[in-house]
Amino acid sequence: MSTAWTARYALRTKGITSSAIRELLKATQKPGMISFGGGLPAPEVFPTQRFEEACHKVLTQQGASALQYGETEGYRPLRELIANNIARYGIKAKVENVLITSGSQQALDLIGKLFINAGDRVLVEAPTYLGALQAFNVYGAEYVSVPIDENGLRTDLLEKPLRSGPKFMYVLPNFQNPAGTTLSEGRRHELVMLSEKYGIPIVEDDPYGQLRYEGEHLPSLVVLDRENLRRDDGYSIGNVIYLSTFSKTLAPGLRLGWIVAPPEVISKLTQLKQGADLHTSTFTQFVAYEVARDGFLDQHVKLIRKVYRERRDVMLQALEEFFPSEVTWTHPQGGLFLWVTLPEGLDMQAIFRAALEQNVAFVAGDSFYARSNDGHDNGAREGSRHMRLNFSNAAPEQIQEGIRRLAAAVKSHLAATTIRLKLPLEV
Amino acid sequence: MSTAWTARYALRTKGITSSAIRELLKATQKPGMISFGGGLPAPEVFPTQRFEEACHKVLTQQGASALQYGETEGYRPLRELIANNIARYGIKAKVENVLITSGSQQALDLIGKLFINAGDRVLVEAPTYLGALQAFNVYGAEYVSVPIDENGLRTDLLEKPLRSGPKFMYVLPNFQNPAGTTLSEGRRHELVMLSEKYGIPIVEDDPYGQLRYEGEHLPSLVVLDRENLRRDDGYSIGNVIYLSTFSKTLAPGLRLGWIVAPPEVISKLTQLKQGADLHTSTFTQFVAYEVARDGFLDQHVKLIRKVYRERRDVMLQALEEFFPSEVTWTHPQGGLFLWVTLPEGLDMQAIFRAALEQNVAFVAGDSFYARSNDGHDNGAREGSRHMRLNFSNAAPEQIQEGIRRLAAAVKSHLAATTIRLKLPLEV
Repeated sequence: MSTAWTARYALRTKGITSSAIRELLKATQKPGMISFGGGLPAPEVFPTQRFEEACHKVLTQQGASALQYGETEGYRPLRELIANNIARYGIKAKVENVLITSGSQQALDLIGKLFINAGDRVLVEAPTYLGALQAFNVYGAEYVSVPIDENGLRTDLLEKPLRSGPKFMYVLPNFQNPAGTTLSEGRRHELVMLSEKYGIPIVEDDPYGQLRYEGEHLPSLVVLDRENLRRDDGYSIGNVIYLSTFSKTLAPGLRLGWIVAPPEVISKLTQLKQGADLHTSTFTQFVAYEVARDGFLDQHVKLIRKVYRERRDVMLQALEEFFPSEVTWTHPQGGLFLWVTLPEGLDMQAIFRAALEQNVAFVAGDSFYARSNDGHDNGAREGSRHMRLNFSNAAPEQIQEGIRRLAAAVKSHLAATTIRLKLPLEV
Repeated sequence: MSTAWTARYALRTKGITSSAIRELLKATQKPGMISFGGGLPAPEVFPTQRFEEACHKVLTQQGASALQYGETEGYRPLRELIANNIARYGIKAKVENVLITSGSQQALDLIGKLFINAGDRVLVEAPTYLGALQAFNVYGAEYVSVPIDENGLRTDLLEKPLRSGPKFMYVLPNFQNPAGTTLSEGRRHELVMLSEKYGIPIVEDDPYGQLRYEGEHLPSLVVLDRENLRRDDGYSIGNVIYLSTFSKTLAPGLRLGWIVAPPEVISKLTQLKQGADLHTSTFTQFVAYEVARDGFLDQHVKLIRKVYRERRDVMLQALEEFFPSEVTWTHPQGGLFLWVTLPEGLDMQAIFRAALEQNVAFVAGDSFYARSNDGHDNGAREGSRHMRLNFSNAAPEQIQEGIRRLAAAVKSHLAATTIRLKLPLEV
């Protein structure tokens, strides 16, 4: 098959492929499948009744504006609501610091567009969010990967990579995707200090920050950076761009995220957004505002925390019950994911296929490691020991059943591998 | 003002500026202003009641799916509806040929991302749609501009530019933005023949095609191309990518457009869309489907045609009544715009300021010409003789009053210029 078009792809698209996860999502639609694969919220907690009231109100009272073209920066009352909402976490942004995006994914795309020249390095965690790699790849990003441990990014390993001059660092401090780990307070201070010392700014991606199920809220990097710089001028300057979203608190189907940044950066991003999609749907913005206002968002987040905490606990307990002792996993304080580590030497692809046969799905860890152009895998081989498990989407009894099935798939391969490893000694 | 960020912009963003039109839109919010500036639909015709019913149905019957993550390609029933809808215009696309985008603007962005390497030339009409230039500029496009006349693109001038090897041609055949002109049937045949002869494919942008107020529908380039290639294989190959949108038929606030292309191109664009925004809002797609289905879209388009035809006629009549004889304008057979040509030597910026003082706004023509990097203005100087006037947004009595005010602003400058030009002879 060929057309006049297929010979004409731009160089930047070489090697761009579809996300393994989104393709997996399609494969897991079949009945009976229990999927820990996607990062899907629980549909049972979507506030559909509140959405219906909001749609009714918006369409009867503001239909002409809600269905019309709108400003690229976003619907002003929604930007104000966001600014007020994040203020309680110490992020004192003004409306001018907030740009509405078509989901956080668009925020990552616009940041790639604004900052990444082909060949520029971006410092990322290993592992990191796959969607960020997808967004940055198209602009020709190279990567410097720094490992994480149970306290998040290994800041003790940062100085050498920072001296190599990455364009920026991309970090998920809270309940990281994929690993579920949280950056400790001490390391947060160290990170903003190093950012200032080397002049390397930070993109702080925080989709899950409000979904904490235990422990105390830790200050955001954007807050610590401001304290560190001793600034109180409404983010006219600063080293940190902060991203978040309504996808995990209201509904991902809205595609509503936002960027908090200095006004001069917001202005540039807005110009790029004009060319990218003119503006995000006015209708979904009006509706989200009506849904979230008057304290509903906070009240709803409390419900989500309760539901997801239970599911996390059920998954942790099932892992404890069904998984063999050679397997370990993270204990996330919030978010949607946990990260399982298998013993070395297992064939993760075979386990994945065996799991699908048992009607249970997960994402293999190697998807979450940046590859560099020199062929260095930046930890992807290490990644082949891991599975990302989502605990927000399936109901508790499904979680228990799914982990039981998954444990069976793992155990059969563990047994096979142990026998194979032992054979030379025994023969 | 400076931050660690502002020194780090990518080269591609050099010279990226905000669209004059979107900035103008903000300026024209003031009360009493009659704006012919934007390309805004008439809010009075938004089918808000039908939207409300659709929202109610979607949220009560499909809330869990409509608010959840969805497939990047788009909501399948909506893609089917689009395929069926365009089939009546001879475009026999299958679902696999249709990708839903976040407005047509995103279609242009994804096409730029997929095809344009820095320095690649794109052949455009002079004048052309400003948003396409904005989308392509960021990928480093250069332009070859070919003039239009009252029958659209001057195909008699195409061969030399095509031999210079542009990556593709970008054409708006129906009721062009900004000029309101329509490509004649003869030229359509010539265009697809030249596309095949030189192997230069075509992006056919058709946001207004259904909004025809007089004359017969003319075949789309994508249809003629297929006939020309004698293919009947569901667009597995072809030289034309076709774009359209619900912005002018349902509501622009939805941000719903689509691309029709060969499956292999759709697959690549889908991969890029994953990185750009994961997918377009599931909620707006479900709602648009419920609004459009069961023949409502066709019925509603009939209403829009009636309303806009009247407004076009009122504007044409007012121009006839109030404008001096030295001024000419196009007679659009459909769409949202007409294009006014003033005598040479007038200061359009001064006229624009005078018009704003009189509380009437338009867009000066020079915005719609591609500039090339060698500084050649590709007709922008010629553009300074033109105004783009939108006739869809203002009510008939406002149109008449606005044209009266605009004529006064033009006349005063015309008089001043005539005196200035005459002075040397008289002194």
